[in-house]
Amino acid sequence: MDWETLARELSVSTPSKIVLLVLDGLGDLPVDGKTALEKAHTPNLDRLAAKGACGLTDPVFRGITPGSGPSHLALFGYDPLRYQLGRGILEALGSGVEVGPNDLVARGNYATLKGGLVVDRRAGRIPTSENEKLCRRVNDALQPPPGLRIALFPGKEHRFVVRFSGEGLTDALSDADPQKDHKPRAYAKPLSSEAKKTADIVNRFLDDVTKILSDLAVANTVLLRGFSKFPAIPSMPDLYKIRPAAVANYPMYKGLARLLGMDVMDVGADTRDLFDALEAGYKAHDFFYVHYKKTDAAGEDGNFPAKVKAIEEIDSFLPRIEALEPDVLAVTADHSTPCLLKSHSWHPNPFLLVAKSALPDDAVEFSERVCSRGFLGRFPALQAMPLLLAHAGKLQKYGA
Amino acid sequence: MDWETLARELSVSTPSKIVLLVLDGLGDLPVDGKTALEKAHTPNLDRLAAKGACGLTDPVFRGITPGSGPSHLALFGYDPLRYQLGRGILEALGSGVEVGPNDLVARGNYATLKGGLVVDRRAGRIPTSENEKLCRRVNDALQPPPGLRIALFPGKEHRFVVRFSGEGLTDALSDADPQKDHKPRAYAKPLSSEAKKTADIVNRFLDDVTKILSDLAVANTVLLRGFSKFPAIPSMPDLYKIRPAAVANYPMYKGLARLLGMDVMDVGADTRDLFDALEAGYKAHDFFYVHYKKTDAAGEDGNFPAKVKAIEEIDSFLPRIEALEPDVLAVTADHSTPCLLKSHSWHPNPFLLVAKSALPDDAVEFSERVCSRGFLGRFPALQAMPLLLAHAGKLQKYGA
Repeated sequence: MDWETLARELSVSTPSKIVLLVLDGLGDLPVDGKTALEKAHTPNLDRLAAKGACGLTDPVFRGITPGSGPSHLALFGYDPLRYQLGRGILEALGSGVEVGPNDLVARGNYATLKGGLVVDRRAGRIPTSENEKLCRRVNDALQPPPGLRIALFPGKEHRFVVRFSGEGLTDALSDADPQKDHKPRAYAKPLSSEAKKTADIVNRFLDDVTKILSDLAVANTVLLRGFSKFPAIPSMPDLYKIRPAAVANYPMYKGLARLLGMDVMDVGADTRDLFDALEAGYKAHDFFYVHYKKTDAAGEDGNFPAKVKAIEEIDSFLPRIEALEPDVLAVTADHSTPCLLKSHSWHPNPFLLVAKSALPDDAVEFSERVCSRGFLGRFPALQAMPLLLAHAGKLQKYGA
Repeated sequence: MDWETLARELSVSTPSKIVLLVLDGLGDLPVDGKTALEKAHTPNLDRLAAKGACGLTDPVFRGITPGSGPSHLALFGYDPLRYQLGRGILEALGSGVEVGPNDLVARGNYATLKGGLVVDRRAGRIPTSENEKLCRRVNDALQPPPGLRIALFPGKEHRFVVRFSGEGLTDALSDADPQKDHKPRAYAKPLSSEAKKTADIVNRFLDDVTKILSDLAVANTVLLRGFSKFPAIPSMPDLYKIRPAAVANYPMYKGLARLLGMDVMDVGADTRDLFDALEAGYKAHDFFYVHYKKTDAAGEDGNFPAKVKAIEEIDSFLPRIEALEPDVLAVTADHSTPCLLKSHSWHPNPFLLVAKSALPDDAVEFSERVCSRGFLGRFPALQAMPLLLAHAGKLQKYGA
């Protein structure tokens, strides 16, 4: 009996509503003695911390730095050590590319080849309109063997998604990317004996595209990364009997949400757009995943003042969530992105939960160190979802 | 290597004694800022908390509300996700009904049928003496097919236990209970393809009993719930090399204790009777499970003052345990039953442990919030038993 089996058995549909606000990469390390969250002026988060129960979560377990896939899966109640998602599938789903069980997808870059070397892995960040033209040209010119279909879908600037459709494809392939400029083109290597056929297909595609674009001075070849097939994963509505909505404005998070069976809301690029979308979708759903990216972006840039500012910005919008009076409101992160490290890290995530059935604790400030003394204690992020469902009255008793 | 394997390998028999006092449903949520345990005047519990080490336990994991079966199993060191006990088996064992591997048991109600509808699912709570007569009458009149034996055992008022004995019976059956008054009689539905034969036997029994009792105006049919077979579960003496005694005065807890191989003491209905029985059995045993029900009953009733009073009552008896000078004394709960929710909940249980080898901490008061800052931290209830055995010197070193 594991959590998924329990969830199917114990979950019940109720009118109660849950809002889960994810401040991507929130956790940090002190700069001049304070973390970004400690430094930021956050009257709303602090008030909620005082009202509710706090704790810390580990996305996988202590010491493991997760990518966005595993950290989000854990937060939604999917064991990140059981389910593994390729970056390609997330990018594809986020861009609205339909993916089925016979499809293999990857993230692509247009790149510039000169004198046998890849001199610019991003092809000078060509305009998106140029990218769209290139994709049309490649799609028209490609002549895949019988039984195989290949389609390119343009993204922003130099980025695209490629989808190979056919029987027996596998994603056990290394990236076809030289990783650094001024190196020769790279081919995909099979990572299992069964993957040889797929590697041949992909590598022939790389040669074909390079031939098709050979008259161009820039954007005359492509790199592929994150080969992935559609994973077999149960949906959140199936597992939890909820009607979940994703309120996110970055492709990857939308893609992940779609994969898990969430309704993906139309959201503009600004922070305020998240809250407009939340309000617009509030009536028709009972679980809301609201994703805020700026905290992570500032962490990746190592920009401490920008991170403080991003936290203060999101804090100012919290009253708009409170005005909806959700039965359960949780604020946390998927993983930490400390400015000092300029990357994801293994540090735990502050977690705050407000509900009628939450026991208020001494944690009257929302921060890494104060949350570590909260009543919820330190727990695997995988237990966040059971906790949210329980506080919303959506989980029945286990056993007699 | 799991805990059970470790327990068998590492446990040793010693003269040291462990008393585990379980205050059923103890944990609560604040009413006017304080939980029942915070509000109650508990000089003895607070003194013990100051002397010992404190913590919080989760019966299953965060968010999961356990029934009495899973929550007690965890407390006794049995993984509640591995072992699942039907309510019928607990009720049967608690009533002293012997159950073997070929037996199927269920909880029964006498009910009243009128004009084709069940008009009273409890038959007006007939007197126990009337129940005893009905069970004798049904037992005498039933003519089960060859190879099958059926016996009814009267309980209090309208309640009884039925035992079907025969080859190939299964407990994969739905309850035969319309759940609400003024509905037609309900039959047991098979929950697997193998269960069809058992469902037919049970449903024929339901028709037969209704025929046998058809001359009566009340208590003229029966309902059955919680079909269960005897589970394969190792005994506490086998696992831990202890001689355990159960000091409880409610059938279900006695039944559970008997299932796990504890000696079930004769205990009267009053709280003082628990301590008389503990003293009487003290010499012959080395592990004592003392079960106090009033805290849970008050929680289920949503009666905060009654819960406070129940806590104060049990507190006053603690010196009688201390006078026995057990090597290890632990006080905790099986699960929380907050007055606010009037039901079991997923909230953690306060835990206090007094032993020579327990490290005293800052927790100088026995309460949910103070225990959350104790030295024992927050841990799965499944680790309570290893902790008790260790502090009693009953667990050897693992590995060289």
